[in-house]
Amino acid sequence: MNVGGSVLRFARALLFCASLTPGVHASAQTDPLPSWNEGAAKEAIVDFVRETTTQGSPGYVPPAERVATFDQDGTLWVEHPIYAQVMYCLDRVPALVKAKPELGKVEPFKTVMSGNREAIAKLQPKDLEKILLATLTGMSVDQFSAEVKEWLAEARDPRWKRPYTDLTYLPMQEVLKYLRANGYRTYIVTGGGQDFVRVYAETTYGVPPEQVVGTAGGTKFAYGKDGKPFLTKEPKLLLNDDKAGKPEGIHLMIGRRPYAAFGNSDGDRQMLEYTKAGEGTRLAMVVQHDDAKREYAYGPAQGLPATRVGAFTQALYYEAKRDGWVVISMKDDWKRIFAFEP
Amino acid sequence: MNVGGSVLRFARALLFCASLTPGVHASAQTDPLPSWNEGAAKEAIVDFVRETTTQGSPGYVPPAERVATFDQDGTLWVEHPIYAQVMYCLDRVPALVKAKPELGKVEPFKTVMSGNREAIAKLQPKDLEKILLATLTGMSVDQFSAEVKEWLAEARDPRWKRPYTDLTYLPMQEVLKYLRANGYRTYIVTGGGQDFVRVYAETTYGVPPEQVVGTAGGTKFAYGKDGKPFLTKEPKLLLNDDKAGKPEGIHLMIGRRPYAAFGNSDGDRQMLEYTKAGEGTRLAMVVQHDDAKREYAYGPAQGLPATRVGAFTQALYYEAKRDGWVVISMKDDWKRIFAFEP
Repeated sequence: MNVGGSVLRFARALLFCASLTPGVHASAQTDPLPSWNEGAAKEAIVDFVRETTTQGSPGYVPPAERVATFDQDGTLWVEHPIYAQVMYCLDRVPALVKAKPELGKVEPFKTVMSGNREAIAKLQPKDLEKILLATLTGMSVDQFSAEVKEWLAEARDPRWKRPYTDLTYLPMQEVLKYLRANGYRTYIVTGGGQDFVRVYAETTYGVPPEQVVGTAGGTKFAYGKDGKPFLTKEPKLLLNDDKAGKPEGIHLMIGRRPYAAFGNSDGDRQMLEYTKAGEGTRLAMVVQHDDAKREYAYGPAQGLPATRVGAFTQALYYEAKRDGWVVISMKDDWKRIFAFEP
Repeated sequence: MNVGGSVLRFARALLFCASLTPGVHASAQTDPLPSWNEGAAKEAIVDFVRETTTQGSPGYVPPAERVATFDQDGTLWVEHPIYAQVMYCLDRVPALVKAKPELGKVEPFKTVMSGNREAIAKLQPKDLEKILLATLTGMSVDQFSAEVKEWLAEARDPRWKRPYTDLTYLPMQEVLKYLRANGYRTYIVTGGGQDFVRVYAETTYGVPPEQVVGTAGGTKFAYGKDGKPFLTKEPKLLLNDDKAGKPEGIHLMIGRRPYAAFGNSDGDRQMLEYTKAGEGTRLAMVVQHDDAKREYAYGPAQGLPATRVGAFTQALYYEAKRDGWVVISMKDDWKRIFAFEP
């Protein structure tokens, strides 16, 4: 051992300490967003992090207040041709009918059991609601989690033939990690079911259950035959976490206004407005699905095809441009979309 | 510089790293619960922390799952003679009547305005409900927070003539800190208003807004005259966070079953049962108010006087004894109750 070697080890030990502390230091060394092309979108994210986490900067945000919210469907993962959760509900119908055969004789369950894709695609919102209620409520919260977990392991997306949890956007995964490395708590704020998304959010995004805000129903506390208490999912809507429901849900579940928010559709408009209306430096970003080749292309903003799932209207586009939100072009801003791409 | 000195500094740097990581190591050096007398209650807490945070222990709990929940009124701070929030609501009535003079002519506002303490004490639940609705809803969430903050700064408890936020139990503050130092996230789960408690929970207990679960009403998103969005507190109950509502609220807001829960009354029973029903090592503790001299004495368990505020019944006491919950005697287990005591 020589003095020089010891000094070196000492320096390394200190460096090791620094890397345990969240901060901008670690990320300054390597590109935190390697799947992003250079451009205004990437710059906006890096600038936001620098401005809000550099002490002495006018936009500095104390660590306790660093909250960033992300819509899920269409923002963090693929939402076309239809939300994964709706696929789950349709896939659950056979088991439901097996348990209650009389259900198979009435609509809309009869149509789902027929397997006729055209007829299923024509189901109306009130039909879907019946299917959602029947497959998302009435069981214990533990049983529900187990059923979702099992489905996620087996179900495959029709286009990529992969588990749904593989269909997350790599660039957005980088943003989640980058923000967390800089002291932000990252929340999912989704129109999807809170209990549904919680099953996979931690392993898929590193977002723990307590940081998932979603459409939530009531539960009912009761005692089982063994005397042990358990919770049952009730058909009672507490929070419709879409549109105006998003800022309302953020207040209910977080109680702080986000400094950054990410969305992709008209359902995220109020969350983005609420975020941008806060004082200081705030970041609002909207993912535009304009890459039919690598993912999907839909709007109808900017002449993209209209859609029933995740509409991004021209009005939202104008509001984004007017109010300094940053529109992310999947086609131009994302070098890679999925981790499984070669 | 010599080799020995470098090695020492190296060791210190490593030690410094260790102290940044939550763990039992730091707390082993000094008593983490100096306001507790030696005894079964203190031992139960220390044992629980050791068992659940020592790697390799059969009761080890991964850091992500370390959740502890605390009732507030009567568990973390004084609830007698009446909940602080009810005092707030009564104190707000004059401002309310000033803004809407017609209110002063109708009950129960007329009685409150009379200042007749006996008559006020006789107000019925339905009267109180009217006062709560009128003082807790109808304003923006920001305005409400500002009003509560102002009240907290001025209001004084009738017995100690101190701000309500001084009336927290020092031994419980130590438990909060001790658990957090060992990687636990500490949540308040209160029958009180979520928005009310959030105003002071961070400065008073080190519990941030997103870790306050309470009785919660809906909010309504709208745009102000300046075009900026804001949220209004609505007279719509989403979660009655008392009794069975506590585990329901825990599921809604946290989505994990607590490993430790602390309460003091029948309103906490279901939370304690839900906590204890989980697998592995779980801790359920109940504060018994048996110290008329230093605080208050009420039960009616164990022959203590009955109370309308925070009843601890004999049935709860038996359940605690039968199911291995730990009853904390304020009189015997707490060396000091308040930080302001000499």
